[in-house]
Amino acid sequence: MPKRVDHEARRRQIASAVWRLASTRGLDGVGLRDVAAEAGISLGQLQHYFSSKNELFTFALKHMEQLATNRITERVQALSATPSPRLVLRECLAEMLALDDNSRTGVLAQIAYFVRAIHDEQLRGYAQQGTPELRRFFAGLLREGVARGEVPADRDPDSEAMLLIGLIDGLNSYLLLGVHTAEQALRLVDYHLANLFSRAPRPRPAEEPAG
Amino acid sequence: MPKRVDHEARRRQIASAVWRLASTRGLDGVGLRDVAAEAGISLGQLQHYFSSKNELFTFALKHMEQLATNRITERVQALSATPSPRLVLRECLAEMLALDDNSRTGVLAQIAYFVRAIHDEQLRGYAQQGTPELRRFFAGLLREGVARGEVPADRDPDSEAMLLIGLIDGLNSYLLLGVHTAEQALRLVDYHLANLFSRAPRPRPAEEPAG
Repeated sequence: MPKRVDHEARRRQIASAVWRLASTRGLDGVGLRDVAAEAGISLGQLQHYFSSKNELFTFALKHMEQLATNRITERVQALSATPSPRLVLRECLAEMLALDDNSRTGVLAQIAYFVRAIHDEQLRGYAQQGTPELRRFFAGLLREGVARGEVPADRDPDSEAMLLIGLIDGLNSYLLLGVHTAEQALRLVDYHLANLFSRAPRPRPAEEPAG
Repeated sequence: MPKRVDHEARRRQIASAVWRLASTRGLDGVGLRDVAAEAGISLGQLQHYFSSKNELFTFALKHMEQLATNRITERVQALSATPSPRLVLRECLAEMLALDDNSRTGVLAQIAYFVRAIHDEQLRGYAQQGTPELRRFFAGLLREGVARGEVPADRDPDSEAMLLIGLIDGLNSYLLLGVHTAEQALRLVDYHLANLFSRAPRPRPAEEPAG
């Protein structure tokens, strides 16, 4: 019987090798040969799955983002049945921060991609697509916060969403430099969220005292 | 008569070569030989001024920061005699954003240093020193804003200062990726400042209507 090869599993194994390289030495100067060695397969086997470096790097980036989205979805689903927009936002931001070794590796890999994307049009195009999607998601949560009366109506959800995305990036940089600790970075995020959601929620119909 | 060599000018010339390399290809894999070639001098001449890569990189970083401080000081001095803390803060943040080609090169060089500092203890130590200084400066301006009644008293100047520093870093990353334009990034900073300085200033004694 011919041996059944799980192609998707092999592609993910190769993608993992890319992140490990990205997080330890960056992606500049990394070639298909380095990735094959890191993944423990031959160059020929790797080229069976990916014909170019750009194809491989883009796949690895998409897969990394998919895993991050899955982790966020899991965190949100672990919350109560109808979590508040503030709580959902807080889980997303905490997941994006390099709070533990696992997310630290992810953030280091993102930075390696970022540095490469500055000079690489194709990767840059990909990065340009992803951010507006996240921004729309955050803006939606903030709009819900405004509708519930928790976020002051004079705050602009779209601007606040982009500020949150930028903020996490910046806080991660200073976290990696050791300027602040994971706890201090998370406390800054919570402080900022408390300013955004500065109003007590309007009582929902079910919670209003019976007339 | 022996030729007078301006040692400081030569050191600055070498530092400039480091930034050009940092902004175009990053600092990983860059050696003293590359810097000498970029500066248009011999390796021996370079080694007369800097005996190690770390010494050279640290000098170049300090000099880059000094120039940035000078640019900010110039901008602030060009303001009125007694600029408001909000205006001083705005000038500092605008100077830190990669709004033109010149500051774009500076930010690219900073990123190259940042990536190197993640894995280099000596550079990381240097980065750890610089941030608290800037944070204290920003926090002082915000405290002045609170004292003048322009910043709500429930805002924490020290936390807001670190959020501002992180924010500029993050907005610069998305600016370099082309996610937003320089104008859009500056508008986000102004939007954030308007939220921070959300109160009308208290009339100062001199401005109070004569009794």
